[in-house]
Amino acid sequence: MSGLFAPGSVGSPVADATSDLAFLEALLAAEGALTSARATVGLAPRGAAAAVREVAADVGRFDARDIARRARESGNPVIPLVAALAAAVPAEAAPHVHRGATSQDILDTALMLLSARALDLILADLARTERALTGLASAHRDTVMPGRTLTQHAVPTTFGLKAAGWRSLILDARDRLTRVRASLPAQLGGAAGTLAAFRADRECGRGGEALTSAFARELALRTPELPWHTLRTPVADLASALALTTGAHGKMAADVLTLARTEIAELSESAGGGSSAMPHKANPVRATLVAAAARRAPGLAATLLGSLVAEDERPAGAWHAEWEPLRDLLRLAGGVARDGAELAEGLRVHPEAMRVHLGLTGGSIVSERVAAELAPVLGRAAAKELLTRAAGRARAEGRTLVDVLAEEPALQDLDLAALTDPAHYTGYAGDLIDRALERR
Amino acid sequence: MSGLFAPGSVGSPVADATSDLAFLEALLAAEGALTSARATVGLAPRGAAAAVREVAADVGRFDARDIARRARESGNPVIPLVAALAAAVPAEAAPHVHRGATSQDILDTALMLLSARALDLILADLARTERALTGLASAHRDTVMPGRTLTQHAVPTTFGLKAAGWRSLILDARDRLTRVRASLPAQLGGAAGTLAAFRADRECGRGGEALTSAFARELALRTPELPWHTLRTPVADLASALALTTGAHGKMAADVLTLARTEIAELSESAGGGSSAMPHKANPVRATLVAAAARRAPGLAATLLGSLVAEDERPAGAWHAEWEPLRDLLRLAGGVARDGAELAEGLRVHPEAMRVHLGLTGGSIVSERVAAELAPVLGRAAAKELLTRAAGRARAEGRTLVDVLAEEPALQDLDLAALTDPAHYTGYAGDLIDRALERR
Amino acid sequence: MSGLFAPGSVGSPVADATSDLAFLEALLAAEGALTSARATVGLAPRGAAAAVREVAADVGRFDARDIARRARESGNPVIPLVAALAAAVPAEAAPHVHRGATSQDILDTALMLLSARALDLILADLARTERALTGLASAHRDTVMPGRTLTQHAVPTTFGLKAAGWRSLILDARDRLTRVRASLPAQLGGAAGTLAAFRADRECGRGGEALTSAFARELALRTPELPWHTLRTPVADLASALALTTGAHGKMAADVLTLARTEIAELSESAGGGSSAMPHKANPVRATLVAAAARRAPGLAATLLGSLVAEDERPAGAWHAEWEPLRDLLRLAGGVARDGAELAEGLRVHPEAMRVHLGLTGGSIVSERVAAELAPVLGRAAAKELLTRAAGRARAEGRTLVDVLAEEPALQDLDLAALTDPAHYTGYAGDLIDRALERR
Amino acid sequence: MSGLFAPGSVGSPVADATSDLAFLEALLAAEGALTSARATVGLAPRGAAAAVREVAADVGRFDARDIARRARESGNPVIPLVAALAAAVPAEAAPHVHRGATSQDILDTALMLLSARALDLILADLARTERALTGLASAHRDTVMPGRTLTQHAVPTTFGLKAAGWRSLILDARDRLTRVRASLPAQLGGAAGTLAAFRADRECGRGGEALTSAFARELALRTPELPWHTLRTPVADLASALALTTGAHGKMAADVLTLARTEIAELSESAGGGSSAMPHKANPVRATLVAAAARRAPGLAATLLGSLVAEDERPAGAWHAEWEPLRDLLRLAGGVARDGAELAEGLRVHPEAMRVHLGLTGGSIVSERVAAELAPVLGRAAAKELLTRAAGRARAEGRTLVDVLAEEPALQDLDLAALTDPAHYTGYAGDLIDRALERR
Repeated sequence: MSGLFAPGSVGSPVADATSDLAFLEALLAAEGALTSARATVGLAPRGAAAAVREVAADVGRFDARDIARRARESGNPVIPLVAALAAAVPAEAAPHVHRGATSQDILDTALMLLSARALDLILADLARTERALTGLASAHRDTVMPGRTLTQHAVPTTFGLKAAGWRSLILDARDRLTRVRASLPAQLGGAAGTLAAFRADRECGRGGEALTSAFARELALRTPELPWHTLRTPVADLASALALTTGAHGKMAADVLTLARTEIAELSESAGGGSSAMPHKANPVRATLVAAAARRAPGLAATLLGSLVAEDERPAGAWHAEWEPLRDLLRLAGGVARDGAELAEGLRVHPEAMRVHLGLTGGSIVSERVAAELAPVLGRAAAKELLTRAAGRARAEGRTLVDVLAEEPALQDLDLAALTDPAHYTGYAGDLIDRALERR
Repeated sequence: MSGLFAPGSVGSPVADATSDLAFLEALLAAEGALTSARATVGLAPRGAAAAVREVAADVGRFDARDIARRARESGNPVIPLVAALAAAVPAEAAPHVHRGATSQDILDTALMLLSARALDLILADLARTERALTGLASAHRDTVMPGRTLTQHAVPTTFGLKAAGWRSLILDARDRLTRVRASLPAQLGGAAGTLAAFRADRECGRGGEALTSAFARELALRTPELPWHTLRTPVADLASALALTTGAHGKMAADVLTLARTEIAELSESAGGGSSAMPHKANPVRATLVAAAARRAPGLAATLLGSLVAEDERPAGAWHAEWEPLRDLLRLAGGVARDGAELAEGLRVHPEAMRVHLGLTGGSIVSERVAAELAPVLGRAAAKELLTRAAGRARAEGRTLVDVLAEEPALQDLDLAALTDPAHYTGYAGDLIDRALERR
Repeated sequence: MSGLFAPGSVGSPVADATSDLAFLEALLAAEGALTSARATVGLAPRGAAAAVREVAADVGRFDARDIARRARESGNPVIPLVAALAAAVPAEAAPHVHRGATSQDILDTALMLLSARALDLILADLARTERALTGLASAHRDTVMPGRTLTQHAVPTTFGLKAAGWRSLILDARDRLTRVRASLPAQLGGAAGTLAAFRADRECGRGGEALTSAFARELALRTPELPWHTLRTPVADLASALALTTGAHGKMAADVLTLARTEIAELSESAGGGSSAMPHKANPVRATLVAAAARRAPGLAATLLGSLVAEDERPAGAWHAEWEPLRDLLRLAGGVARDGAELAEGLRVHPEAMRVHLGLTGGSIVSERVAAELAPVLGRAAAKELLTRAAGRARAEGRTLVDVLAEEPALQDLDLAALTDPAHYTGYAGDLIDRALERR
Repeated sequence: MSGLFAPGSVGSPVADATSDLAFLEALLAAEGALTSARATVGLAPRGAAAAVREVAADVGRFDARDIARRARESGNPVIPLVAALAAAVPAEAAPHVHRGATSQDILDTALMLLSARALDLILADLARTERALTGLASAHRDTVMPGRTLTQHAVPTTFGLKAAGWRSLILDARDRLTRVRASLPAQLGGAAGTLAAFRADRECGRGGEALTSAFARELALRTPELPWHTLRTPVADLASALALTTGAHGKMAADVLTLARTEIAELSESAGGGSSAMPHKANPVRATLVAAAARRAPGLAATLLGSLVAEDERPAGAWHAEWEPLRDLLRLAGGVARDGAELAEGLRVHPEAMRVHLGLTGGSIVSERVAAELAPVLGRAAAKELLTRAAGRARAEGRTLVDVLAEEPALQDLDLAALTDPAHYTGYAGDLIDRALERR
């Protein structure tokens, strides 16, 4: 897969960590760990386990394309893989390959291995982004800019507060990913989740725990309380955390895309993307790719959440419907984490443009404040009415609000210039940033 | 709303707790609490606060339909509600109504109030379900039944293990809902999230915390770290937890629907639903309604996860797109929690049908075990081949596997009857149940 | 339902046409039409049919809330409704109520009736929108504005072309809705889709067609080829057409929201919505509500498309999962159709702002053209390089591209002013509009 | 891409037709056709066009992986591809490569080429499925089986009617795919959809139609009315038709999965899939893979429908979000079409199992009919009551309904055996099949 369709994830660490080859390695690692765990609890000779592990560690001996093609017959790739692995190990080790397990044990475990690696990579990128945003929030603690609601200037805010908000979303994503990362379980249940084929050979502790925990330990995954063939909380939790991660970056991207517009230009990406036709263009490419990912993640998460509805001891479809969407979601999150880090680290902030824009409404951006000042004098309703009228007149006549208000006899005593200075009306923005940055 | 379209949630406690009337009450409660909080920090006279609260507590004074209709102009119901509230309080209290706040402060807070109440109700139902499933898992710890994978009999399991699995999903849902419940924040940020209009009147502690926490305390919600007008983690977390809750019930329903089929009849609902045409029918109605909800929840959660992408300080659409889906999702979860509790409490288990079905494959359901026993004797491949052949012959000739195997010279020394007794091949099912029930 | 949660659809014609009351009326109309159709083919006395119809026409005799509550038992509202209807008609007519039918016949037919009415209303609003957009496209055939790609100015376009594009989407929606409207089928199949209970009484033509077509005719719906209890193409087609309709409006809204931004202000809504805190604000409320609906429609359509997977002769959940999402989708489409018409009819266009913005990039907006002119002179690569360099210098030095280029010795012979006039570089925009408007 | 994650589509014709290589070929074909079309209208020398086409036809000269990696910079693969193509053609042809076009022209056109090929392949498989289902419907026109609603036996139906229903869904899918196939447009608009860079060189007919239609003709695509860079009806129509196709197959799969259950076994797949652990298993693998695809298609379609909301002349994200989901959806539909054809062609029907099941309810399956017969004698309510009571007693006492009813004095004159023969109560099933099969 060259990645031609996927500029958002092409070449990313997570894309590599979730490649078909990585999946094959993880499937083999699960088979290897199973035989090792069997040896640990006395279900298999140590020599056989070592032999299986050695072969399983050599992915080059296996033909992914052939295994994939033969997966059609049984509906999953583990059956042909087991056949290939058994054929590749010494004859005396062959009976110990996959013994007691079911395909889903191996496949689910491999997916958790891929997820674990992907989450580690994503968390590393989030740490970069967090640092960059901490820097932006601090540096621009007092950089005043228009606050915008429903696309219109509302009251002033600061760019620092915006960056602190993005950071808090990144930390929310980090917290959820970290929690999910720690909970990723190995899967081991045998044909119908009772571990019967293992127990038939030998007792492995209460509920087979000696075996299960040896298996999980081998792979650095969590020992589950129950086989989870049809108890899909781990997948649902992954879906939710990955969709949140993608959406958190999507918020940052949405703001960047808005503020990078030609007319606004309060932000720009460090290295804008070129155009095939227009030499002058510097497109916000990182933000664009993040925005694209954020449009896709919810639908994929919905499919994974839908697979909670998994009948029987292994469902006919719900399980199979998870594999590609889970990988896609890991890759989308991996892509936005990479692009998000580059975006945050390279973001250029243009305070002068922000300052110019604060004047765009001719003072109306602080009309809330003026209204509050006038209310005690004129009464609340009258103040609001006066201001609505004045703002309209200012707009219509192309004048500033201050100019129009200055003509109002009732307002002669007010220092209108100070009152309408946006920099004097950022509320607790600074405090809020300081407090938000205390969160680690 | 009569509920004609929604038999799954009609008349449920959560449906009541999220009605238009309840929403109006919550919006008014938020306005009341705001004025109280202002009084607490000295921004308003106590008398005015009391007056506002008194009026706000009397929802009967407000015309929901009229407010809703007028909400079209501004795009949200808070603006007309504030006008109505200000008109209804004594003149001297009117200036203190909604002062300093923005519509989103009130609406988001009201949604969190509805969510808090709904989650409490759902958690109560989950507790009922958990108790009922504990009972089923214990009572049927050793009730053997066919384990089924990809619709086919695989190896035996027990109904107790199935019930313990359902219970673990219910506990997963409980844990996630409990976590989200504790985190539901009040919203208070003012026009662009800086709390500027409050600070203009008086300092309210660092970052306005004195005010914000008084407001949150008043409503028994969490004080947020930052205004979250466009940092929508709380809504995304709700969406994820509610979709997981609905899906967890959907798993139980899927199993019940399968096992209640006329041909299977291992389970039945206590009170099946009737038919408009067929007097004999006893439909699994509770499970059907749960299954319907589980089909809908992921799409609604996807919409809410998509609203993480919220540009600026208040987005033009992403926020508005949350209101109905959040209510729908609360209601779906509330419906499945009610139906799930009734289903679990009333579920009838038919062990004799399970026993009969264990014999349906003429012993093939334990072919895995037989293969394992034969492997040391014949070699693994030969054992599997012999069994595949024998199972095929048994199927073709309408005989049991035991009969066919009994004719094999190589197997004369085995106690085939004991070997093929499904009750002797349930692995660690009992242990797993015991351990799973230790989770509280 | 007051509509407090739904400013986008509150009070709209489609909201009324899909109310619980309207649904009850439609269910009763279906029951009435069934008895009439039975009479038409000789299965019932004409007098009984008339009696049933008379009662069924009087929705006031039925208690929607009570029927809804009792729908819980059986999982659908038709069973209690039939009981109530049978109790309300003269004793001799009672046996003819609902006779031969199944609940799904009535409920599906009622949903198609609601859909038919809703689609007619939506189509009427689309016609208004189409007319308004035709006017805008004509009036602004030559109103030059910046074309924007990936948020950046690209090359000039015209507002007329943009309006013509919106119009073509509205016509696409119209065409799909019209096709679906004409195909909406009545449902009549009896308990399992064989019409057995009807045939038991009397032959009704080949495949019962005399009966089925009489029923469909009575309700102005299409006679289906087969009962479609689990052949859900009609619902899937509705979902697709309604999602397209909502998305088509979503495109228009996205453009309006962008172009109405304070910094851009090339468009504004006729009557912007106010704010609870800021007197000066004029929010693009219509576009906001449309944008919100467009975020929700795809998830609802996904649920309906998912219900194609409907097992057996009536599914346990897939069918029930359709009712509310179908109504929601009709209402979203009805809301955007209303808001879209108001938006298009009242849209204010500000050509002077467009003109100013064309100059924002200091001529770079026509750099593609300049590059093309220079290519034959300098070679393509050199031309592109020169322009990229010049555009960068212009940006850095705050000068126009024309100024910078004027210093290039190689370009002394070019009429740079004419070459960089955006109005001279709108390509076939005018032609394309003219041709697009020929589509009716 | 080996297909390890995707047993449902691995090795399918559609998977090949939508590979990264096929995409690269299609992108090059679009570039080649563009130069040819330019030559056709006199915008380029014929020799240059021939040179470009020759190089573009040789995909082996291009390094997909390198192009993909470089696509990150600009956000799409066309820009590096154009560079590579321009470098590969003779120097005099280079200036004509991609001239006047924008990346989206090429990429959208390539996606339509892939879609066209995929749809042709899917339609061929649908034709196979349709033939197989015609055969099944005819052969089993009178094969009586239980009709099932909400998982319970309702009244009898025939397997022929079920097969005819599946067939009608396949034809619905065929009709929608055929319509979409005929409408797939080429894309050509230039930087902002005005075709300005083409017109700058030479007039190409009204609206550039001479050029656009030459381009479309070259690729056997439709000439669009307008450039559709942000008028995404073609993609939305594809999404809807592909989701319907997948869902139509999903209905068939859901029925097969139900009826292939060990306890039901009325259907089986010709070649069931094996298990890694259980020698006897024959899993319905084709149906399982179809069911998995049907769970995924709606979420992907939702993403594509969501991309209708595409701001400006090229959106920052909505467009990029289409590429992978569109390919995924084509592949899912291609997979279900292949698996559906194999499933239908190989399906084994077991009429004897159906016959046995018709007796499972001890006659209750025709209780509707008995009720109708008794109604004139006893009154409708009394008849229903008697039957409900009798059905309950029969169930409780393990007797047949006929036995219990035979003891009722009121029914002494009825021929209960004939009345309760399921084969006599299939209504118009035969007629409906005959009529449905007339549809071609």
